[in-house]
Amino acid sequence: MSVVVRHIARADRSTVDALGGLGVATIHEAQGRTGLLAARLRPIFPGAHVSGTAVTVSVPPGDNWMLHVAVEQCRDGDILVVAPTSPSDAGYFGELLATALRARGVRGLVIDAGCRDIAELTRMGFPVWSRAVSATGTVKETLGDVNLPLVCAGALVRPGDVVVADDDGVVVVARPAAEDVLAASRARAEKEAGARARYEAGELSLDANDMRGRLARKGLTYVDQEPGE
Amino acid sequence: MSVVVRHIARADRSTVDALGGLGVATIHEAQGRTGLLAARLRPIFPGAHVSGTAVTVSVPPGDNWMLHVAVEQCRDGDILVVAPTSPSDAGYFGELLATALRARGVRGLVIDAGCRDIAELTRMGFPVWSRAVSATGTVKETLGDVNLPLVCAGALVRPGDVVVADDDGVVVVARPAAEDVLAASRARAEKEAGARARYEAGELSLDANDMRGRLARKGLTYVDQEPGE
Amino acid sequence: MSVVVRHIARADRSTVDALGGLGVATIHEAQGRTGLLAARLRPIFPGAHVSGTAVTVSVPPGDNWMLHVAVEQCRDGDILVVAPTSPSDAGYFGELLATALRARGVRGLVIDAGCRDIAELTRMGFPVWSRAVSATGTVKETLGDVNLPLVCAGALVRPGDVVVADDDGVVVVARPAAEDVLAASRARAEKEAGARARYEAGELSLDANDMRGRLARKGLTYVDQEPGE
Amino acid sequence: MSVVVRHIARADRSTVDALGGLGVATIHEAQGRTGLLAARLRPIFPGAHVSGTAVTVSVPPGDNWMLHVAVEQCRDGDILVVAPTSPSDAGYFGELLATALRARGVRGLVIDAGCRDIAELTRMGFPVWSRAVSATGTVKETLGDVNLPLVCAGALVRPGDVVVADDDGVVVVARPAAEDVLAASRARAEKEAGARARYEAGELSLDANDMRGRLARKGLTYVDQEPGE
Amino acid sequence: MSVVVRHIARADRSTVDALGGLGVATIHEAQGRTGLLAARLRPIFPGAHVSGTAVTVSVPPGDNWMLHVAVEQCRDGDILVVAPTSPSDAGYFGELLATALRARGVRGLVIDAGCRDIAELTRMGFPVWSRAVSATGTVKETLGDVNLPLVCAGALVRPGDVVVADDDGVVVVARPAAEDVLAASRARAEKEAGARARYEAGELSLDANDMRGRLARKGLTYVDQEPGE
Amino acid sequence: MSVVVRHIARADRSTVDALGGLGVATIHEAQGRTGLLAARLRPIFPGAHVSGTAVTVSVPPGDNWMLHVAVEQCRDGDILVVAPTSPSDAGYFGELLATALRARGVRGLVIDAGCRDIAELTRMGFPVWSRAVSATGTVKETLGDVNLPLVCAGALVRPGDVVVADDDGVVVVARPAAEDVLAASRARAEKEAGARARYEAGELSLDANDMRGRLARKGLTYVDQEPGE
Repeated sequence: MSVVVRHIARADRSTVDALGGLGVATIHEAQGRTGLLAARLRPIFPGAHVSGTAVTVSVPPGDNWMLHVAVEQCRDGDILVVAPTSPSDAGYFGELLATALRARGVRGLVIDAGCRDIAELTRMGFPVWSRAVSATGTVKETLGDVNLPLVCAGALVRPGDVVVADDDGVVVVARPAAEDVLAASRARAEKEAGARARYEAGELSLDANDMRGRLARKGLTYVDQEPGE
Repeated sequence: MSVVVRHIARADRSTVDALGGLGVATIHEAQGRTGLLAARLRPIFPGAHVSGTAVTVSVPPGDNWMLHVAVEQCRDGDILVVAPTSPSDAGYFGELLATALRARGVRGLVIDAGCRDIAELTRMGFPVWSRAVSATGTVKETLGDVNLPLVCAGALVRPGDVVVADDDGVVVVARPAAEDVLAASRARAEKEAGARARYEAGELSLDANDMRGRLARKGLTYVDQEPGE
Repeated sequence: MSVVVRHIARADRSTVDALGGLGVATIHEAQGRTGLLAARLRPIFPGAHVSGTAVTVSVPPGDNWMLHVAVEQCRDGDILVVAPTSPSDAGYFGELLATALRARGVRGLVIDAGCRDIAELTRMGFPVWSRAVSATGTVKETLGDVNLPLVCAGALVRPGDVVVADDDGVVVVARPAAEDVLAASRARAEKEAGARARYEAGELSLDANDMRGRLARKGLTYVDQEPGE
Repeated sequence: MSVVVRHIARADRSTVDALGGLGVATIHEAQGRTGLLAARLRPIFPGAHVSGTAVTVSVPPGDNWMLHVAVEQCRDGDILVVAPTSPSDAGYFGELLATALRARGVRGLVIDAGCRDIAELTRMGFPVWSRAVSATGTVKETLGDVNLPLVCAGALVRPGDVVVADDDGVVVVARPAAEDVLAASRARAEKEAGARARYEAGELSLDANDMRGRLARKGLTYVDQEPGE
Repeated sequence: MSVVVRHIARADRSTVDALGGLGVATIHEAQGRTGLLAARLRPIFPGAHVSGTAVTVSVPPGDNWMLHVAVEQCRDGDILVVAPTSPSDAGYFGELLATALRARGVRGLVIDAGCRDIAELTRMGFPVWSRAVSATGTVKETLGDVNLPLVCAGALVRPGDVVVADDDGVVVVARPAAEDVLAASRARAEKEAGARARYEAGELSLDANDMRGRLARKGLTYVDQEPGE
Repeated sequence: MSVVVRHIARADRSTVDALGGLGVATIHEAQGRTGLLAARLRPIFPGAHVSGTAVTVSVPPGDNWMLHVAVEQCRDGDILVVAPTSPSDAGYFGELLATALRARGVRGLVIDAGCRDIAELTRMGFPVWSRAVSATGTVKETLGDVNLPLVCAGALVRPGDVVVADDDGVVVVARPAAEDVLAASRARAEKEAGARARYEAGELSLDANDMRGRLARKGLTYVDQEPGE
């Protein structure tokens, strides 16, 4: 049975927006190195950085019908997260669907499949993270699901979870953990700002983080010249 | 025997140029989802969009001698289409060949192999769609063919066919079909313009295309909450 | 035993800088088509072109501890060259390490693994050639070596060798050969400048390089129309 | 925090064993085309076909320490399911761990990483489904988790779920659904046995499944010769 | 429009069978190094070697409906050649379709997509060359074509052409050329038998083929020890 | 200049043969996890296990001329190690060259490119480790080098070094280190034999290697049930 879930609990908007001010790598680290989608998802143009609440879509290979169904379920501040039930590089998404999503306030698309109309999407500034660019067309024959939990590019995404994406890739933050992850991410960002200042001044991380003793105990040896030369 | 065919029938220039005003995805759709080259061919810089008539070159792996032979067969408005007889990522093409092609009015290169001198080609604005970027050199030892039909990145290309390439990839339109495909592509583009306006205004494709009935007959079910929660 | 070699012989600075004015493809050709790193190493942003002396780092998979150790061994004009002992796409390198390296005058990073903080590195203008972009974190548990010879992306790199990188990829020039390779590269670049001028004027490489006789002897045949048509 | 869960609810043994008599493709179909692990997991030798209850292990890249921890949690009838937290092809598993697992009655290993000692494992008849064969060693430095839910090769696996693997790949059946999936799989296998008998006798599936009308309505056209010939 | 062509001209049976006694590499060489399908097509079990006449099937991604349609068009001595219109690794083919094809005398399947039921197909001895093994299911929603020319794994295949497949891969021989290619292949095989006898006796190909002069003219130099040692 | 080095120092035969009695993984571990060739090299048939002294051949892409040159330099007990100067999957090697090599006592081939005549090589029992199986032909146009050091599949191989290959892959042992690596490999094999006996008897590696304390100090926590359930 194919299902569309109409009412989902979305992460708190202010938390979502605050997470969007932090980088994917920082958030990934702050939540214990979890939640990262596979690195095969790449942005279609550089420089985008968005956060939003996930509306999830499970689609058949080569069939984008459910994307049309999903548009209706989107609200301002959402990000569409799409995974095919078997691998497909077809061009599921293009300018027209982006126009429809933008009209509803959707902030971007994450899709473990192909995308097309790259030039138009770039002009619109509508960001997409996809595993392929392909003009290959899709059909509208077979159903899927909207707003059920799914695995996208190796990560579990539940409807309403927070999705953050930038030039490094895509990370998902579970809705119940969003506040805590935000706090941990901010703490990490502050710590990194401190480190950055010290490194700019020439301090070494070996000293700043007191690594020399542990390195020596592990057996690191400094020599003046390459052994045997 | 290696052959260079000197006289080929080229698609009509005004048709070629008009097709260049339409996107690869649109043309691919308008001709029944055929003619698309494999998505592994990517532009070396973003934003290029060209059309032209194919001059085809079959080359040995790692040997670019026939590109030099092919230059002489090119005319204003052509696009060079190159396929190796076995897979190769070597850097067959660079700035010097681009200079020679540009002097003859060639509009770009499509090659199912590697390309180099990316910085110079970007500065020249000479667009290339290739499967790899590689500085690896090639030799000039073995012959190939110019202007015979060939398979490039999975698609059959005949000399004189129309080639259109943009950020989405590359599509070939058979010469005898060019007029019809142009008409069909324009019709599709117009239809899409109408759809775009409706979607910008917030109309749903579910309604615009009257999909709700067929979705329901296929068994799509709307629920308020995730089953089992 | 893990070793850090403190004193390495670096290629002459003026030679290194002069090589940085030449392209990777030119240098690769000029030294007999050797020294090219595998084409899987791609720049994280377009347009960078650097040269420097190699500080080499052999790292365990998913462990970037030795990068911190290596920073201390770097000097103005160096390029860090990093290879994992088994394949890894993890994000070994980001903004903080780049800040530390820049403070010491390092010109860039070449890494046969993953890189993150792409947006920040782009803003800093710190160039990286990597095999992947990935936010995946790394650990600091296991030692490696600094300034021993290593194989990076298929090429042998010795500490102090010259590394040149641009949009085409990365090439290494052995330190003892640097002067000769510079001379040969310059000669090649001059020859190419001459060819470029001739090609811009419409001369054919078939004539400029007197290829017609050899092509004919190999059996190249010109026909007016495709055989069998 | 790294966690080992000691007591997990395992699927019923007789159901597990009965599922092992059915093929991966049949089970995958019978449970609505869900639960299939990515096709990159391939058996290290042909002909193995096993079922068992999942003991799950989340491991760092290039670090097999947690496999040693997991052995203790295994019981007769289990299958070890291992996923790295970031991609790794290292050789996590070999003959010694197989010996330890076999001594506890474990029936096989499913790992989204590398495996080694292929010759010895083949001689032992201990089946492994892995994404790579690699002799590359791993370390024992960093912790992971045992018996938490994880995503392995794109599928969600919970401890105690049923895992079935054969030459086609690997499928997971959620523990609460195991009885129903067994019944559905048996029904499908019986139906297929009937179809097989009819097809052996020369009946066409077009007739057996009454497809001709629907094909005609979709527009399928039979012609005597290729159009245009 | 989707089309099934009912009457195709098949290559002569005795020629087809004789080609089946020769290897794929030999035939590929004998017809001027053309007709080879991409090396991504691999046999599902070792040791198969078949020849037959092509029945071609163009299929949508993830949809195997047309395979059922194609069965009816097959005759004794055919090989089914299947290409998806966009890349798909789904499991289009399994034991039931193999049973139906075998009942009609079909000798094997060549498919640029996925195959399943490997264990059963191996027991049946029904050979398949595919790009993937995958249990992923397919649908029956969208039409394709039977017995139109198509590009499969990069090679043009026309209905009725000869297909030969062995452990090395798959080669297609155009129907009109089959007699000539058979003669050329036999000549090559005889020549190789002569060479084999000489090499077994210890003769060098350098002498048997008189290569020493040409090698010397190209500049090959024999030295007693590595230069610089 | 292309060079053939005629006299190379080969590793001691008895050491070479003794290393052939040990597995690739064991040797790789015993020499500090170095010397492993990339896992893309796979055996063309299962079950082969050989050792020998390297005769190295650097070849152009798609050109196997130098293999013919190399045959003459081979002696009883050698293994041919071949690397192309840029990536190539062409079928450089087949039955005839294997016949010539076998006549000289060569034990196998390691090639970072393609191989063909798989059925014949399997019947001969001549083992090959290659990156691809491909019937694609090669030319004899361009020179390379025999018996110079080269990088093959990411590892440095010097002429006369020991090469060991089995179902796990290929490892190279530097000639000067062969005695020491043999001793270390034997020690490791003995230690593993002891471990195997203990594991067969049901002892846990956690206890045998006294890991529990270190695991606890790192923070490993045992719980009875999944947290939150």
